[in-house]
Amino acid sequence: MNLNGSWVRSIARTERGVRILDQRRLPWDIEWVELASAEMAARAIREMWTRGAPLIGAVAAYGLAMALRNDPLALDPAYAQLLDARPTAVNLRWALDQVRDHVRNLPLDARAAAAFARADAICDEDVALNRAIGEHGLTLLEQLHARNPDRPLNILTHCNPGWLATVDYGTATAPIYLAHDRGVPLHVWVDETRPRNQGALLTAFELAGHGVPHTVVADNAGGLLMQQGEVDLVIVGTDRVTANGDVCNKIGTYLKALAARDNGVPFYVALPYTTIDRSLASGSEVPIEARSGDELAWITGPMQTGELATVKVTGSAVHNPAFDITPARLVTGYITERGVTATI
Amino acid sequence: MNLNGSWVRSIARTERGVRILDQRRLPWDIEWVELASAEMAARAIREMWTRGAPLIGAVAAYGLAMALRNDPLALDPAYAQLLDARPTAVNLRWALDQVRDHVRNLPLDARAAAAFARADAICDEDVALNRAIGEHGLTLLEQLHARNPDRPLNILTHCNPGWLATVDYGTATAPIYLAHDRGVPLHVWVDETRPRNQGALLTAFELAGHGVPHTVVADNAGGLLMQQGEVDLVIVGTDRVTANGDVCNKIGTYLKALAARDNGVPFYVALPYTTIDRSLASGSEVPIEARSGDELAWITGPMQTGELATVKVTGSAVHNPAFDITPARLVTGYITERGVTATI
Repeated sequence: MNLNGSWVRSIARTERGVRILDQRRLPWDIEWVELASAEMAARAIREMWTRGAPLIGAVAAYGLAMALRNDPLALDPAYAQLLDARPTAVNLRWALDQVRDHVRNLPLDARAAAAFARADAICDEDVALNRAIGEHGLTLLEQLHARNPDRPLNILTHCNPGWLATVDYGTATAPIYLAHDRGVPLHVWVDETRPRNQGALLTAFELAGHGVPHTVVADNAGGLLMQQGEVDLVIVGTDRVTANGDVCNKIGTYLKALAARDNGVPFYVALPYTTIDRSLASGSEVPIEARSGDELAWITGPMQTGELATVKVTGSAVHNPAFDITPARLVTGYITERGVTATI
Repeated sequence: MNLNGSWVRSIARTERGVRILDQRRLPWDIEWVELASAEMAARAIREMWTRGAPLIGAVAAYGLAMALRNDPLALDPAYAQLLDARPTAVNLRWALDQVRDHVRNLPLDARAAAAFARADAICDEDVALNRAIGEHGLTLLEQLHARNPDRPLNILTHCNPGWLATVDYGTATAPIYLAHDRGVPLHVWVDETRPRNQGALLTAFELAGHGVPHTVVADNAGGLLMQQGEVDLVIVGTDRVTANGDVCNKIGTYLKALAARDNGVPFYVALPYTTIDRSLASGSEVPIEARSGDELAWITGPMQTGELATVKVTGSAVHNPAFDITPARLVTGYITERGVTATI
């Protein structure tokens, strides 16, 4: 999307490899870094310079291509090295499989070019997928705006289901970007998204770069905003949707879904079909990761001087679960690349 | 309650006046300050060294007494000066009225002593009120614990309805302190309470000082904890309850009430009857204050070195409403000084 006046993707080819944003210090430092080897790609994944399932897959795919450029025989060790950077990431393994299956039966001197081509295709496919989600969501937003044409459509979102987590457009943000670009007047309430603040840091940064009107609010505020009629719909992304339509997403999503239901506000989940995990019957089967308490107990940002500092939020014992489950009964609809559906 | 091994109240007489905690830097700096004049008392209220309706009332009452000690003719100007420190605080005006009405017809040389005596009584009455809330709540907690006697009772609370906001015991914390002291095994989930973090900073500090087991969680986490069966009840305080039982409390309370209802978790509000405002029919009539966005956009805490620093959380536009309304239909019961009731 637009960033400082230029349309960029979150990952792009360079002469020596690919460039990505170092997302650890966004929005305070906007630093593009070049990854020129499989080792660098693995490090960027492991150390969370980059994040978001689709983007991690793309970085890994290019990492494998770079490994083959150096040594066409390196397929298996490079695959293992990249997979090891985040073993639990389903999309990372999928992308590596795509590249490996594409090149393993090719002559050695054709492998690197084919791998780069497959990685390029993975990126283009992700963009096309998100654009399709965006187009279907756009129709929905246009319909909702037509109900109250005299005022901007107010959309609330949570976490960062945006272009920084994908190759471009994002999932939940894709309809927002397309609607904004087509002239639908809208405004986004951005949940801060404690404890890692992906809303305040990343989603707000994205929306500012693209010129979409937005306001950051505490995660606590969404219920009141809905009580006051200040939210026309909620759109969130998801990490996993189970067979019955239950939605695993960033901690706090469930609370917004409850408030939406209580106030008659439509609650939508944007996702590609690949996010549906039919091996799990319902959300109660999803394991909930508890992450390091330091994510809650410390926070980094610039001081008045501009210099970054990390300060303690609490010295108490903390518990930091990463996700919650929004039951399917609270979901108005799923915005997918195939259309908007009431059930999955 | 207990703090570093000694039982303290949030306000206590000293030789020259009263001492209070400077709550602006808690829990990082524990600093008792002595207020020796009406001017100091007004400043402590205006600059939020002190907070919480009952405690502000007590500080103002002593402020008026100190003014009369210096000049028995200063009743009206000192009253005006103290009222002006926070004109919207209903309890502050009530406390000043109590002292003024008590002394205005007394001989000049008897006024100061009578004013101090009335201020002392205001404090003792607040403590007795909160203890009564605590005793009634204790019975409730004992009953709930008896249902699952093999594990600690898990209580979730929001913001700081604690002794730091009153003279002692607090409102929602009073049953917790009494239950803990009587040997009911319990554990408190403390909501961080963005944006001002009164849970992570103040409630956690209180509970630690008194030795009550507790864990700080992001405001987003409460829904999941209830889904997982990790919350046996919710107890919150309130700023105002309307005639129909709707509860105005710190922003985010409503979301926890929704999650409690969705998971069959009892949701209680602790309050003295003075908090009921029968002039308002329902919560929709309560004006919701929007506070400075800086409360959300900046955060202060100690760095690794121990030195305090203030860092930016977001550079975006922010909106910071302070309260939301929990409809009476979501409230299981009200814990008051007269007993626990299902309706107000």
